[in-house]
Amino acid sequence: MEKEKGLLIVLSGPAGVGKGTVCSALRKHDTNIQYSVSATTRAPRKGEVDGVNYFFKSREQFEAMIEKEELLEWAEYVGNYYGTPIQYVRDTIDSGKDIILEIEVQGALKVRERFPEGVFIFLMPPSLAELRSRIVGRGTETEEVINKRMNVAKEEIEMMKKYDYVVENDEVELAVERIKAIVIAEHCKRERLIEKYHQLVEVE
Amino acid sequence: MEKEKGLLIVLSGPAGVGKGTVCSALRKHDTNIQYSVSATTRAPRKGEVDGVNYFFKSREQFEAMIEKEELLEWAEYVGNYYGTPIQYVRDTIDSGKDIILEIEVQGALKVRERFPEGVFIFLMPPSLAELRSRIVGRGTETEEVINKRMNVAKEEIEMMKKYDYVVENDEVELAVERIKAIVIAEHCKRERLIEKYHQLVEVE
Repeated sequence: MEKEKGLLIVLSGPAGVGKGTVCSALRKHDTNIQYSVSATTRAPRKGEVDGVNYFFKSREQFEAMIEKEELLEWAEYVGNYYGTPIQYVRDTIDSGKDIILEIEVQGALKVRERFPEGVFIFLMPPSLAELRSRIVGRGTETEEVINKRMNVAKEEIEMMKKYDYVVENDEVELAVERIKAIVIAEHCKRERLIEKYHQLVEVE
Repeated sequence: MEKEKGLLIVLSGPAGVGKGTVCSALRKHDTNIQYSVSATTRAPRKGEVDGVNYFFKSREQFEAMIEKEELLEWAEYVGNYYGTPIQYVRDTIDSGKDIILEIEVQGALKVRERFPEGVFIFLMPPSLAELRSRIVGRGTETEEVINKRMNVAKEEIEMMKKYDYVVENDEVELAVERIKAIVIAEHCKRERLIEKYHQLVEVE
């Protein structure tokens, strides 16, 4: 019988929303979630360990990984490659462990194409929620300020559409609790469990 | 703009699984979940308050509610009617509060027809999970015992199919934590939130 697989959890959201802070805070909680390790061509910094902080690769090695489609997603920043090795993600999930990937929006959308069964969480800036209550509220802002905020909100909503969950990052610990709750709930989803039990009763 | 609605949470499962115990334990936790109040034709017991423990009704009143489709579901036990007034559920949800309904499987399936947007949780007896590990395990049971367990498991799986979530009741407090997590996660679901934000940016 097939073992229950782990989940790929993708935490993403607009620049500056606090993905890194939330992820670091989550690490301090007692969860069984593993953290994805990226591959990079940048040189290791002092204290960084290969296979722990990053998988350090040469440009040739990294380009070979791109060629062989061994990366869930990749990007180039300031002359260096960064990417997520698909094998590490698959091995973790197959071992029954959950793995979290913290990534910007473009990368997340690429991961969704390769891994639609992942759990995609959009970390939302509190400004969008604030905006809501402000606009509903007293209406003392100038038209220009309101229009600017509306445009930002519209762009963020377009991004939200591609995700399963939206978590407001109003307070880091509250955001962490919501993410933990999503992981627990996803493990209770009937469609994830029923296959397992079907196999059980059909093995006779 | 539309206010964010509460959730209807339906907690159900086979007889004897411990729905009442889990619901009572959940009540002791600090949640914002309200508990559904049933209508009944049975006489109030000492200390029971109308509108708190039950809505006490005459047979004529109850039959009029059935006639007018004012009940989400109803059943007759030992000569008395029991049912869930739809208005109480709708009022609670419209006020932005979550409401939980603890109910047997047949009733839950009727609720699903009227209220498909509800969150349906199947409380699973740990025996089904135990069964799994036993069958996978050493295989020392007689064929008769295995067949009997298989049949029970098959019936339970058929019921599970109609639910959104499956929560194992291995320990009451663990089951309560899973239910709380499901409620938090459901409030973070993109499809529940996006409509609200769409309305926000389109009001101009």
